Amino acid sequence: MRARVVLKPGKDKLLRRGYPWVFANQLHRIEGEPRSGDVVEITAADGTTYGLGFYHEHSQIAVRFLTPDPNAQIDAGFFRRRLERALALRQAAFGDSTHYRLVFSESDGLPGTIIDRYGDVLTWTCLCYGMEQRRELLLDLLEELLRPRAIIERNDHALREKDGLPQRRGVLRGQYGGPVEIVEEGVRFRVDVLEGLKTGFFLDQRLHRPVVARLARGRRVLDVFSADGGFGLMAAAHGAAHVHLLDISETAMERARTNARLNGLDTNRLTFDVANALDRLGELVAQGATYELIVLDPPAFARSKRHLDDARRAYQRINISALRLLPPGGLLATASCSQAVDEATFLKIIHYSARRAGCALRLLYRGTQPPDHPVLEAMPETAYLKFFLFQKLTDETPPVRQ
Amino acid sequence: MRARVVLKPGKDKLLRRGYPWVFANQLHRIEGEPRSGDVVEITAADGTTYGLGFYHEHSQIAVRFLTPDPNAQIDAGFFRRRLERALALRQAAFGDSTHYRLVFSESDGLPGTIIDRYGDVLTWTCLCYGMEQRRELLLDLLEELLRPRAIIERNDHALREKDGLPQRRGVLRGQYGGPVEIVEEGVRFRVDVLEGLKTGFFLDQRLHRPVVARLARGRRVLDVFSADGGFGLMAAAHGAAHVHLLDISETAMERARTNARLNGLDTNRLTFDVANALDRLGELVAQGATYELIVLDPPAFARSKRHLDDARRAYQRINISALRLLPPGGLLATASCSQAVDEATFLKIIHYSARRAGCALRLLYRGTQPPDHPVLEAMPETAYLKFFLFQKLTDETPPVRQ
Repeated sequence: MRARVVLKPGKDKLLRRGYPWVFANQLHRIEGEPRSGDVVEITAADGTTYGLGFYHEHSQIAVRFLTPDPNAQIDAGFFRRRLERALALRQAAFGDSTHYRLVFSESDGLPGTIIDRYGDVLTWTCLCYGMEQRRELLLDLLEELLRPRAIIERNDHALREKDGLPQRRGVLRGQYGGPVEIVEEGVRFRVDVLEGLKTGFFLDQRLHRPVVARLARGRRVLDVFSADGGFGLMAAAHGAAHVHLLDISETAMERARTNARLNGLDTNRLTFDVANALDRLGELVAQGATYELIVLDPPAFARSKRHLDDARRAYQRINISALRLLPPGGLLATASCSQAVDEATFLKIIHYSARRAGCALRLLYRGTQPPDHPVLEAMPETAYLKFFLFQKLTDETPPVRQ
Repeated sequence: MRARVVLKPGKDKLLRRGYPWVFANQLHRIEGEPRSGDVVEITAADGTTYGLGFYHEHSQIAVRFLTPDPNAQIDAGFFRRRLERALALRQAAFGDSTHYRLVFSESDGLPGTIIDRYGDVLTWTCLCYGMEQRRELLLDLLEELLRPRAIIERNDHALREKDGLPQRRGVLRGQYGGPVEIVEEGVRFRVDVLEGLKTGFFLDQRLHRPVVARLARGRRVLDVFSADGGFGLMAAAHGAAHVHLLDISETAMERARTNARLNGLDTNRLTFDVANALDRLGELVAQGATYELIVLDPPAFARSKRHLDDARRAYQRINISALRLLPPGGLLATASCSQAVDEATFLKIIHYSARRAGCALRLLYRGTQPPDHPVLEAMPETAYLKFFLFQKLTDETPPVRQ
């Protein structure tokens, strides 16, 4: 007999909408003696079953949903079907391209599990105790399905602690011979899957880089928080007059330099500037610098709702500065990857920034997560990326006054 | 001396945010005796100037903003600069491609004026009396800038009546030798600029057609409200197993047939079905039909806020039916071009439809207007297009229950 968790009456509202987490405070009682990582049956107060999930004794997230079938076996066959389905979606969406997020946790029915693919190197990130316990099974399946040269553990993730899991990074399977080369829009990038930011590349901005790059032709570009140069170097490759890459990390900038060389880009048209972005933006404004296209792709300023006020101020500061650096007609590509800042809030921040900078804006493009980062309609936690491309107006509308 | 309109105290809130219309009920007094179509100065109650706009004696929209410079001449030079700027944006956004919305009214600082370009044929639509008066000037400038073979009037638009303008359609300049061919993603379309829907093609879905088409490979597709076949035929060209085109218009379907032949598409893989979409969808559900990808791109169901309830019911009806026609894992591309239905409302309609159809969804792609239909941040009226690509989930989340 499987252990069961029984929900308090009325506490299944989210579940009934398709939300895949059960919180500890929604539990009425536990039947059997499940341990963390065990598969339990989830039942409503009236006895109706919701299916199966991974149990955790101490996490706020008491159960992570797995399947509606209470008789399902959570075995190799189960995980193989989920992985095959995840792979089929990416192959349908991206054709021959073989770098993408292969598994986006709950959105792919694999709780807390993120698997990125860069050709024949895979990364594995796990935020769920039950999945961590089944690590070898999952790695075997990945080898069977994709025959990777290496599988890299990227578990240097603070959220691991919520499930009582240690932070770790390293090679789990095969041989990692160093950075992997990928090609996007004809631009080559060396991805350091083991040492790079996140899992080595910002896969989630995939659809936005070409949008920015195509508009960069002939423009002077400032790429703020440039990391390995994704936006800026693609802009340079598409004919930007000049690209100023700005990032606080010397190692990221070194990777950007390597990527520039790899593409034979003219270094006279590139500035590699290692500095604190908020400070440097202020200096550039004070100097009266101008750029015709600015990319703001900062790290998540708000790690949680508690940091929302600080985050808002930081977003405002960089967006006001950027708008001041743009001449009329200039373009601002501005993003936020803070899950705690929803789109309406982020838009308000931009609108406030525009009023502070005394300019009017028109929206040329709006993006969100690409198809390899699907958003569960029932789970707002799976939506985090906001991306907008604005143009600063010249004199088409009444002058904005505070 | 130019005539002036003086706003009531406190009635300039929208203007101060960059909103380009002044409504008749916001006016305190009118100095001078302006006639409809005259350029007037817009001033606040305290005498501050907001610049110049086109006046209308009887329209609810009393003044349409033109420029913040109260001394500007609204002459050929003024309009040439606006047109050149509009053209520069489209060339930057679309490169060598020469079909796009060249002017999107207020968003390009040309009130009520829509100009579409299909290679060397232009269309002109005008909803503003002041611009209508300057028609010959504008057409001269278009000929000077773009040397078009023909300029077609597409003023078969009910909104014209608000400015007291008659509905009209015809050739204004040059010779229209019949449909123009355009190419998108390697697929050829003959665009009937004079007789087709809107100005002959749905330019605003440009970025969405390839997203759908790439996912169509090997799938059975239903294209509802297929018009000239934009979505469906591109899906067929990208390897859809079968495409069922459904539209109520026999003439639109005839154009879709022509487009299919033009691309040498195998007609065994195509069904051309002339029928009322709402009825046919119900019949297909009753028959137990299934499709692996469904496109719902209906006409604007809500012409105004007054029709919102009817529109909601119609959107629900087609979306519920479509979701019932999809197997688990199937894809739904669903759009709304009703300006009166905002994105949050449309999403609620989709969520409700999913609960009614008893399925959970994940979002793979979200789109809005392309860069040739820019949205003024200060003017929600310029935003109208919503586009979502959802996947019906299999068993990754708890079963949705009403």
